[in-house]
Amino acid sequence: MIRVGIVGASGYTGGELARILTLHPEVEIAVATSRTHAGKKLSKVYPHLAGIADVVCEDVKISDLVGRADLFFTAVPHQTAMAIVPEFLQAGKKVIDLSADFRLDDPAVYEEWYQPHSAQEYLAEAVYGLPEINRHKIASARLVANPGCYPTSIILALAPLLKNSLIEPETIIADSKSGTSGAGRTAQVGTLFCEVTDGFRAYKVGDHRHTPEIEQELAKLAGRKLTISFTPHLLPMSRGILSTVYGKLTKDVEPQQINDIYQAFYKDEKFVRVCAVGDYPATQYVRGSNYCDIGCKVDQRTGRVVIVSVLDNLVKGAAGQAVQNMNLVCGFDESLGLATVPLFP
Amino acid sequence: MIRVGIVGASGYTGGELARILTLHPEVEIAVATSRTHAGKKLSKVYPHLAGIADVVCEDVKISDLVGRADLFFTAVPHQTAMAIVPEFLQAGKKVIDLSADFRLDDPAVYEEWYQPHSAQEYLAEAVYGLPEINRHKIASARLVANPGCYPTSIILALAPLLKNSLIEPETIIADSKSGTSGAGRTAQVGTLFCEVTDGFRAYKVGDHRHTPEIEQELAKLAGRKLTISFTPHLLPMSRGILSTVYGKLTKDVEPQQINDIYQAFYKDEKFVRVCAVGDYPATQYVRGSNYCDIGCKVDQRTGRVVIVSVLDNLVKGAAGQAVQNMNLVCGFDESLGLATVPLFP
Amino acid sequence: MIRVGIVGASGYTGGELARILTLHPEVEIAVATSRTHAGKKLSKVYPHLAGIADVVCEDVKISDLVGRADLFFTAVPHQTAMAIVPEFLQAGKKVIDLSADFRLDDPAVYEEWYQPHSAQEYLAEAVYGLPEINRHKIASARLVANPGCYPTSIILALAPLLKNSLIEPETIIADSKSGTSGAGRTAQVGTLFCEVTDGFRAYKVGDHRHTPEIEQELAKLAGRKLTISFTPHLLPMSRGILSTVYGKLTKDVEPQQINDIYQAFYKDEKFVRVCAVGDYPATQYVRGSNYCDIGCKVDQRTGRVVIVSVLDNLVKGAAGQAVQNMNLVCGFDESLGLATVPLFP
Amino acid sequence: MIRVGIVGASGYTGGELARILTLHPEVEIAVATSRTHAGKKLSKVYPHLAGIADVVCEDVKISDLVGRADLFFTAVPHQTAMAIVPEFLQAGKKVIDLSADFRLDDPAVYEEWYQPHSAQEYLAEAVYGLPEINRHKIASARLVANPGCYPTSIILALAPLLKNSLIEPETIIADSKSGTSGAGRTAQVGTLFCEVTDGFRAYKVGDHRHTPEIEQELAKLAGRKLTISFTPHLLPMSRGILSTVYGKLTKDVEPQQINDIYQAFYKDEKFVRVCAVGDYPATQYVRGSNYCDIGCKVDQRTGRVVIVSVLDNLVKGAAGQAVQNMNLVCGFDESLGLATVPLFP
Repeated sequence: MIRVGIVGASGYTGGELARILTLHPEVEIAVATSRTHAGKKLSKVYPHLAGIADVVCEDVKISDLVGRADLFFTAVPHQTAMAIVPEFLQAGKKVIDLSADFRLDDPAVYEEWYQPHSAQEYLAEAVYGLPEINRHKIASARLVANPGCYPTSIILALAPLLKNSLIEPETIIADSKSGTSGAGRTAQVGTLFCEVTDGFRAYKVGDHRHTPEIEQELAKLAGRKLTISFTPHLLPMSRGILSTVYGKLTKDVEPQQINDIYQAFYKDEKFVRVCAVGDYPATQYVRGSNYCDIGCKVDQRTGRVVIVSVLDNLVKGAAGQAVQNMNLVCGFDESLGLATVPLFP
Repeated sequence: MIRVGIVGASGYTGGELARILTLHPEVEIAVATSRTHAGKKLSKVYPHLAGIADVVCEDVKISDLVGRADLFFTAVPHQTAMAIVPEFLQAGKKVIDLSADFRLDDPAVYEEWYQPHSAQEYLAEAVYGLPEINRHKIASARLVANPGCYPTSIILALAPLLKNSLIEPETIIADSKSGTSGAGRTAQVGTLFCEVTDGFRAYKVGDHRHTPEIEQELAKLAGRKLTISFTPHLLPMSRGILSTVYGKLTKDVEPQQINDIYQAFYKDEKFVRVCAVGDYPATQYVRGSNYCDIGCKVDQRTGRVVIVSVLDNLVKGAAGQAVQNMNLVCGFDESLGLATVPLFP
Repeated sequence: MIRVGIVGASGYTGGELARILTLHPEVEIAVATSRTHAGKKLSKVYPHLAGIADVVCEDVKISDLVGRADLFFTAVPHQTAMAIVPEFLQAGKKVIDLSADFRLDDPAVYEEWYQPHSAQEYLAEAVYGLPEINRHKIASARLVANPGCYPTSIILALAPLLKNSLIEPETIIADSKSGTSGAGRTAQVGTLFCEVTDGFRAYKVGDHRHTPEIEQELAKLAGRKLTISFTPHLLPMSRGILSTVYGKLTKDVEPQQINDIYQAFYKDEKFVRVCAVGDYPATQYVRGSNYCDIGCKVDQRTGRVVIVSVLDNLVKGAAGQAVQNMNLVCGFDESLGLATVPLFP
Repeated sequence: MIRVGIVGASGYTGGELARILTLHPEVEIAVATSRTHAGKKLSKVYPHLAGIADVVCEDVKISDLVGRADLFFTAVPHQTAMAIVPEFLQAGKKVIDLSADFRLDDPAVYEEWYQPHSAQEYLAEAVYGLPEINRHKIASARLVANPGCYPTSIILALAPLLKNSLIEPETIIADSKSGTSGAGRTAQVGTLFCEVTDGFRAYKVGDHRHTPEIEQELAKLAGRKLTISFTPHLLPMSRGILSTVYGKLTKDVEPQQINDIYQAFYKDEKFVRVCAVGDYPATQYVRGSNYCDIGCKVDQRTGRVVIVSVLDNLVKGAAGQAVQNMNLVCGFDESLGLATVPLFP
């Protein structure tokens, strides 16, 4: 049994961490912080957790927080994370950081897309927490940079093709669609019910901050630099990301061959499910679970491959993957506490 | 470990039973039937169950089915259930029937609201499967009539008041609103996405077949006959029922007194959560769980009490309650396999 | 052609006024005010109005505003309205006030439910703007208090029964459900998409500020004082209110009799549609229109009548009714600019 | 005043035609056909039309139908259209066909994607009914092939670029997302509310029948043959299509230059609105209207242009465009009866 702390428990990701960790047999939520809701039970902030996660939210200085747990989830905005993570590490704690602050290897790239980085000395040791790709590194890490929701869906979609040099890197286009929970629980007009429901829009076309993170990790898989086109869209639903990823095939292949490559690549993965040829995944089939489901189309008319991947942005795209990373870091079974069945309908 | 059979696995209730039973530590799904989908894996019918419930749906005669499991869930339409349940019982099997066929004590009432009853000899022994009210009878039953979704929400809302003679029975009005999954997975124009989304309607006003079931069980709690007004409505969402129940108070009471009565009445119940005075429940806080959340308003201006209760119609309103009943029937811990956390948002 | 001003153009009601007035053949939007968006085109605030309502929002003192139009719609919060309406009237302008400030006849009642009233001298002359009931008074008014959205649905549902003494006033219960646009365009956590979608809740049970307004107008129809139970709920959709209204019948009547009474009562009304016996209305059939559709159930088992009424809260419940009132006040055809067809699906 | 007939009035497109034509000042709906609903008022099939379009649906032989109107809208499935359209033409009637049967110039291509064509002799004279591109031809046509919903959104998105040779035709990828009304009003499990809501999926990836139609029309604009990748997706909403279209730029251009080209291309178009640089359209801003809104991104990092276009699939994607075509064919003002304001929220 380990003690964990959730820093930033009142956002949707924090709430989802609490939901998952509550059922985890090896974990106790020792402390949960929230500036806005300090003094309230987490179950007042999230009534679905009533009688389940009655921990009281606290607004506590990092120095006082450090001793309260063995491992911390930092579910805070970028820039805030870099200000607090070093202190946890210096105190010998493990950190799963859900912000963007430790995902990019190159501080110059970080600065270009975000702002200057104040904890650059930790970038080298931070491990990009995508277990299907980096399992062994994660297991020995003390700082895991939990991937972004969009990047997880896109990297898992492309890894088998890039590893097998089946796709031309410069032709990659990722058209992604996300549920609204990705925008967080902050009050703003743009994510009011009436603004989002019964509607659909693209945003930050070509400019989204997940772009460099995606390119960095795809480059590692491809063994060369690359740029991609990435367009996020906002779906009129709470949870779920679907990425439709396009690229030119480097050679003629049959649909079944590509499918076999995916099946083989992910055959030992508990959280990746590959659809049969002709089937495509849907976000509603992974809702509330840590699965990433993937389907492929070999389009012989155009010489392109189209990969469709789906996940729950709050689970495999955030809190679930964070717990998967925690399991690895702590030496638990990787799927401990994550064996839920998707909720459909 | 017991072997269970799901008769009618391809409806939403059947799928939800599979979802829940898959995670139940003492149960194995030995057989699942579906006429329409015979020969297909259940996970082809419900892709969210891929890799989780890969049992193959069968279309099998009851006589061949009987020996395949120790306990059967009959998730079939009324009239179909009465035709098959006797055979299971005669073979010494336990049955949790999710249809309406064994809920009404009086065959004449059944005939008035449905059609003639062909298995009347089993009505007397069937136990109405609302554990919070009938726990002990259920534990020794071999046939449990799993309550309707609306009735569960209304009976749990009223039980503390009726038991304490605090409400005038003849003044009870139940205004209920249900998600669309209650209408089942049959293709019909009325439940197409475009017909339901972004809209709201009442249906079967004063005529819904759950009415006699509600009146029968409330009468037992009140110790006298009663008629109620019951209006169901269709919500533009999948899961969830909210019932707003009105009645005249029999005497002056303070809000906190009523709240205390509810807290006391349900203090040992794992699946009923009572809100504080001034708080009301919401369907999104019980989604995917077996909870029924209840809030009360004492309206001193009008001398009425208003109770608001919510549950997930597929869980506490159907499959979850059925598993709770199975746990009782089989002597398992009542909440085994049901300790999930609601999924919000 | 008259010049109208919209005071508070950036809320949903203001936007809807602009949408409707744009197509009105006798009206020009001479000025639109918004503190938050001063200097922006209204079509920047509401992109659906691009190329249609390109008026620039202004933040202008009332004294400077007064001369800019012949008639003003005040689509501002209560308390703000009472501070500005007198000045318009003193300058000889007509006002359609969409706030609650001039709806209650008795300042003591207003103070009990809101706060002290600072313009009580105008209460007596303000006409409650429900054209189906007060058409003639409205036509000669200079200050019209546009009804609340819930009250409109409930008063129109009950008027034929109360006028014909067919319902016992003290037994009236109104269970109402509203789309989320009723909560306005202000950023707040409670109306974020993820908080509202796929969920349903009651709020302000027995305490909603529309209660005294409903009681006041029903009392006029009944010819005696009365109190009602009123429970509002929040629907996971943008537009639409459905009220389910219950009461004891004062005598035995046949369903067709009641239906005939409704048909007769509303036979000359362009914006009220009465359903046939056995049919009930749905919010999706009035979306975007000024209709109020009504269906009735005579429940002979319980001696109650159940009336179901629906309307679009932003149209018949706010901006559409305001334009209907403007038409009366200005001597235009009552339905001018309002002859749109509901948008379904 | 002309008499029009709606053949296939009970589908969503037929209902939308009725909604629009009802408000058209130069048109009378002389006859509406529906096999399933023959004998019923259209307003029983579509209650939103109660009191508005009370025409009775008929099941009438084409030979008897021919004389009943001057112009026919054929809102029937492909293959049905080719069986009836010739008879209308032979009788000297005008036809706006909303099926796919007369959109493709080459019967061999039609046969490859659909089935053999039985009225090939009319393909040459049928005019592809996209007014923004083919206005003059439409005006003198007697058979207009009303475009598909997806093609309309994609062709309008690309026309300015292809006409100006700014995009490499072989790099075009169209990722489109549609509301569920595009799937029609036929009862089927796949479009039930619970299957669609709160979810998102791709379908017919690379195989959708709109592909050859898109390629044919883009080829005319490009002046050369081309193949594209086209992926449709199903959105959890009723109305609206958004297409995100990608391609390589043929030369370096500034964002404002591309925007100027779009503004110029569509400057006289009443139904195309071009967003400012940095703004993108959203389906909710065109709901219920005949607008197609377009936004562009010049992505200098990748050398690609990304165009986002939106429309209401039932209006500009079907019935609205059909009326626009009718206006041209009949010599009415092109926007007659179509000057509605989008409904938001």
